[in-house]
Amino acid sequence: MSQNQSASSFKTASEISKDGSFKRQTNRFVTPFGNEQGQLPVEKDRYRLIWCAACPWAHRTVIVRSILGLEDAISLGTVSPMRPRLEHVDWAFSLDTNEVDPVLNIQYLSEIYRKTDPDYTGRPTVPVMIDLETREVVNNDYFTLTNYFETVWSPFHKVGAPDLYPEHLRKDIDELNDIIFHDINNGVYKCGFANSQESYEAAFDALFARLDELEKRLSTKRFLHGDYITDSDVRLYTTLARFDAAYYNGFNTNRNLIREFPNLWGYARDLYQTPGFGDTTDFDAIKRHYHVSITINTDKSEVQILPKGPDLAVWNSEHNRHELSKKEEKFLVVSK
Amino acid sequence: MSQNQSASSFKTASEISKDGSFKRQTNRFVTPFGNEQGQLPVEKDRYRLIWCAACPWAHRTVIVRSILGLEDAISLGTVSPMRPRLEHVDWAFSLDTNEVDPVLNIQYLSEIYRKTDPDYTGRPTVPVMIDLETREVVNNDYFTLTNYFETVWSPFHKVGAPDLYPEHLRKDIDELNDIIFHDINNGVYKCGFANSQESYEAAFDALFARLDELEKRLSTKRFLHGDYITDSDVRLYTTLARFDAAYYNGFNTNRNLIREFPNLWGYARDLYQTPGFGDTTDFDAIKRHYHVSITINTDKSEVQILPKGPDLAVWNSEHNRHELSKKEEKFLVVSK
Repeated sequence: MSQNQSASSFKTASEISKDGSFKRQTNRFVTPFGNEQGQLPVEKDRYRLIWCAACPWAHRTVIVRSILGLEDAISLGTVSPMRPRLEHVDWAFSLDTNEVDPVLNIQYLSEIYRKTDPDYTGRPTVPVMIDLETREVVNNDYFTLTNYFETVWSPFHKVGAPDLYPEHLRKDIDELNDIIFHDINNGVYKCGFANSQESYEAAFDALFARLDELEKRLSTKRFLHGDYITDSDVRLYTTLARFDAAYYNGFNTNRNLIREFPNLWGYARDLYQTPGFGDTTDFDAIKRHYHVSITINTDKSEVQILPKGPDLAVWNSEHNRHELSKKEEKFLVVSK
Repeated sequence: MSQNQSASSFKTASEISKDGSFKRQTNRFVTPFGNEQGQLPVEKDRYRLIWCAACPWAHRTVIVRSILGLEDAISLGTVSPMRPRLEHVDWAFSLDTNEVDPVLNIQYLSEIYRKTDPDYTGRPTVPVMIDLETREVVNNDYFTLTNYFETVWSPFHKVGAPDLYPEHLRKDIDELNDIIFHDINNGVYKCGFANSQESYEAAFDALFARLDELEKRLSTKRFLHGDYITDSDVRLYTTLARFDAAYYNGFNTNRNLIREFPNLWGYARDLYQTPGFGDTTDFDAIKRHYHVSITINTDKSEVQILPKGPDLAVWNSEHNRHELSKKEEKFLVVSK
């Protein structure tokens, strides 16, 4: 795998535009899940999902897998938040015994990307669904994976699983997800990976304008689309959970901390304190990934320091977000 | 001047202990000002003070010079917050016409340190008092300079100048100044320049324990020693003014922002809004120094980004600190 990359942040050189802005690579493996010809069959024990606890794109799939009870249908492999020190950008199974995934028997995620497509030149990314029959990558489409879990994977949902992507809200959810992606989820990376002051400032302004807008939206709604948690909330949450601990100082998104926005902060804690969110949020992995792993210090005489702050116990503090809701439950459960 | 130094932060290698902690170099030129034998004579137009607007140690001398009206007695030269890209640590007069100080006719501060002492191996530092008769460094003792300005320099104070170092409080001021120096003024550097996780965390804990203590102290006192601004307030202020804009993300002092401490934040704004403080505080210089100049990016393909945040207009917001005081005035003025 040939890759031109920056040593100081894990993006490839091809992801930096002429104007210095960060353009995230497109997903290579995007075949949909479904039961039609040419789609990836929805089958229990057929796939292995690989995630990294630090990665917001992977985290969203693990939250949805947990909320919907897909743990028994889709197994989970975990790569370390600490990137391996290799010539190319990679993820390593260094948390596992003998540093190999016990099911796939590989040390680095690139191995399976390369096996799948020897000409693949992008970064190997998480989340990724591996077909255990072929041992190949079948889908790394982080933008759509949760929607497959929420829809075509419903035969394997647990009893009483909520509807995170209700038909009547899909248009609104899709529209908002697109906004959240460009200005917030990827917006923080556009700040952190910018290679010109102008592109950084443009991303910074778009990010905070959008956060200000959502702060206002969340002053009257408990969740983004009303009384119930939806797919949009999962997507916003994974960035909010990383904001104060990582992006504010690691990616220069330092107009305000999330804990300085009263509604966003109450909302973020409301989600954190909900099963599936807080119990899959690993602040230690997040901090180590963004502050130590992602910035390789090229001066070997310097020790990489892990910032001790911020105080993360505050995530368990009380909020009164339920007062904004007319419902007792925060999930929409439709009996089938 | 031979110097072993780190390229990525402007300290010398000799300032890093075996345990990774930062031990600031001691001042080389410490002859006191005064009118006794062997002291530096207190004379108008005899000395030039060199400062950098980014530097907290130099800033304190400029605040005190302004409050006491010593501008007519001691001239001021200014080095750039952007360190020159040289093999040794230096300060440059690059803000001046032709990039030389108009009085001393030098380009780099090291020139005058070297002229004074060819064997000087430390960093050339600001603040520094230059004797215009000999064109040599006579005092770079940042710890004591303001005290000289407040005492033996009183013949040149403006009419109605306040007493920042009243006799009856000197013991308390000296004791508190020592604490503020170790845990706060130099404490942030101990965090930012630490070369081991342990020494960083020890400095971090000491810093925030002390800030918590001062937060409590300032809940009942308008200023550190009561109703009037003293030398201790000048010293605490110069670190507080740099905290949210620079240290929180540049030096990993990220437990809390100063604007999250109600009393410290009101106190800092109270001082900022006082002549001598805010009008000598250059946030742009501070941000550029700590975020761009101090961290030389050794990866030449990367552009150094200046963080756009935080919002600094909040420094002008209202506070109600005067309610804590029994006095109308915030300076102790004793008619002479």
